[in-house]
Amino acid sequence: MNANVTNTTVGIVGGGPAGLMLSHLLAIAGIPSVVVDNRTRLDIERTVRAGILEADSVRLLVDTGVSDRVHRDGVAHDGIDLRFGGASHRIAFKALIGESAWLYPQTDVFIDLADARARDGGDVRFGVTNTRVIDVTRDRPGILYDGGNGTAHEIRCDYLVGADGSRSICRLEVPESIRTHYFREYPFAWFGILTEAPKSATELVYNHSARGFALISQRTETLQRMYFQCDPSDRIDAWSDDRIWDELQTRVAGADGFSLNEGPITSKAVLPFRSFVAEPMRYGRLLLAGDAAHTVPPTGAKGLNLALADVRVLAELLERAILSKDDDALDEYGPRALERVWKAQHFSYWMTTMLHTLPSATDFDLRRQLGELSSVAGSVAGSTYLAEGYTGWPARS
Amino acid sequence: MNANVTNTTVGIVGGGPAGLMLSHLLAIAGIPSVVVDNRTRLDIERTVRAGILEADSVRLLVDTGVSDRVHRDGVAHDGIDLRFGGASHRIAFKALIGESAWLYPQTDVFIDLADARARDGGDVRFGVTNTRVIDVTRDRPGILYDGGNGTAHEIRCDYLVGADGSRSICRLEVPESIRTHYFREYPFAWFGILTEAPKSATELVYNHSARGFALISQRTETLQRMYFQCDPSDRIDAWSDDRIWDELQTRVAGADGFSLNEGPITSKAVLPFRSFVAEPMRYGRLLLAGDAAHTVPPTGAKGLNLALADVRVLAELLERAILSKDDDALDEYGPRALERVWKAQHFSYWMTTMLHTLPSATDFDLRRQLGELSSVAGSVAGSTYLAEGYTGWPARS
Repeated sequence: MNANVTNTTVGIVGGGPAGLMLSHLLAIAGIPSVVVDNRTRLDIERTVRAGILEADSVRLLVDTGVSDRVHRDGVAHDGIDLRFGGASHRIAFKALIGESAWLYPQTDVFIDLADARARDGGDVRFGVTNTRVIDVTRDRPGILYDGGNGTAHEIRCDYLVGADGSRSICRLEVPESIRTHYFREYPFAWFGILTEAPKSATELVYNHSARGFALISQRTETLQRMYFQCDPSDRIDAWSDDRIWDELQTRVAGADGFSLNEGPITSKAVLPFRSFVAEPMRYGRLLLAGDAAHTVPPTGAKGLNLALADVRVLAELLERAILSKDDDALDEYGPRALERVWKAQHFSYWMTTMLHTLPSATDFDLRRQLGELSSVAGSVAGSTYLAEGYTGWPARS
Repeated sequence: MNANVTNTTVGIVGGGPAGLMLSHLLAIAGIPSVVVDNRTRLDIERTVRAGILEADSVRLLVDTGVSDRVHRDGVAHDGIDLRFGGASHRIAFKALIGESAWLYPQTDVFIDLADARARDGGDVRFGVTNTRVIDVTRDRPGILYDGGNGTAHEIRCDYLVGADGSRSICRLEVPESIRTHYFREYPFAWFGILTEAPKSATELVYNHSARGFALISQRTETLQRMYFQCDPSDRIDAWSDDRIWDELQTRVAGADGFSLNEGPITSKAVLPFRSFVAEPMRYGRLLLAGDAAHTVPPTGAKGLNLALADVRVLAELLERAILSKDDDALDEYGPRALERVWKAQHFSYWMTTMLHTLPSATDFDLRRQLGELSSVAGSVAGSTYLAEGYTGWPARS
């Protein structure tokens, strides 16, 4: 009946960093996989996402042979500035724990992974349509999709991985009766801009002010990424360039000579702010990874890093399940991945609530935040605790 | 007109630990003071209050010659247990930072101070009535009160200190136009009991559970103090002994063999839960100290310790102001005291929100709290940061 059936060992829905990295790690172990994604490769490359990699994310890219471009084109950040009360206070990751975070856009991580899969002969099918999954609790679950000219395709596999992002179709296969969705919405959003301006700082500046949070980050020598807390209902056209610069300048103002460089604004976007965790991460022969299973607010830059951490664990367990015929190994996946997920959820929540101003915030709340920021920045232990979370708990992972 | 006028250098309203310790420190510097309090000494002794002293609070009592009884009758606690997910996780203060906290009831601190003042010939007048203060912005402010048989008394001084607790009359002297009151109320309270039971643990157990916080602490070998989070509107008679033990046992239940010892309950009380800071702490010749200027929720056991920290700073500055005739020295009081106050406010808020269950808490919030507790207990840096706050930031104070 169906002329286009592919048999493989692991079928992966979603060709973002999580799906591609999993396919790459499985290939190293000699396990075949097929990746499908409704988006074209160009669509994904053009999506601007997070830009900070944990130390272990960088090591994963380099050590598994994806690419060492992160070392050449990425920038090691040996710390961040916590800016409050009009002055900057550096949290010196490298000096405190010997680790750095890396500025390297998610787009480049994707490009490196897609190139590596192509280089190694991986079976990655971008730009398909109408992807569905079937038989996730049977022996050979399937991925169905339409190819060019509407031809029907079918992939049959031993294990099916949903790495298909926050609007995952795979997640819906877990019956409501056994799934739990943990959710938290925040009463603010981020307004993000790209601006053609010189750098204002060499590392990220996380800025607390009574008017709300601002983040000064970098992309290149001539292009900068900045964010500021806004109302989730704010429309992009309500923020003229002048209004944006006035707001940013007011928030970062201080007596210490910090100067925010302005330039033409080339992109504006409002980013939602929510936390989400789906359990279980395994259902039958279906396994969820990355944004399909959990999303974090952007404050801690944990989203991409959590996705890579998920598939590192998942690849190890799939290897045991498949090569040693030990299906029970996959029972470890949820508990092991979720331990890190909830630490990351807390870290993101902590950075968020320490630095943002709730609409309901009183003067007490603002002063208490300054008390917290002083405590963290003024204590080696407090700064180290933050550095561990930001760089991704490398010693324990 | 007024037959009973006393002239002194520092007039102190409030004979609790803050007022008495200030009078004691001033006496060491050769500066006369008079303390008045509407309560009798016995009233104050019978008030059951906090029981945990920071390391520097203990040193202040011993090193200034108040008493070394804290070393004999107090108990050094080299750590606490954070209990969550049904298991205890020790935060080992002594091992982490070389400091301990001390179990020594506020009542005993008061007795030691009152005895020391009596021993040294201090002028402390308990059990007066109708205390008022006048002329706080003039050269010689005054304290007025009625003595026995309704005789009118007047104390005139160079500086007037309001150490008269959270319902301070002195605080009201600061005009509304220049004062700021920072306030936060929490949607829960503590239900506190005393029980005639053997100890269940040698150190304090801070217990997180989905049903709410519980604190297992000790008073003596045969008398224990326990608290559990309750609704602020709960009436004492709604909690029978059986209901209390059921609730406590359910909250601390686990698989690690922890056993909560029960006994007859000899005292029940509902403790309010709020944060408050009044600024400025100086107005003319009036200075506020301790609960008169700020209150903290009980979770961090910071109230008494902050009061002692206030008067340590205040005594030093009064000494400069009086002995060196440098009135401007007192301008440093607010900023120096408030730096610690806001750190303590944050620490209390942190311990509170990490361990308590908000009435609005979702499953996400509970899981995130467990993520935080795991992060803190599982990290030397996180545990050290907590230990610094709990023992009172001794190295920096």
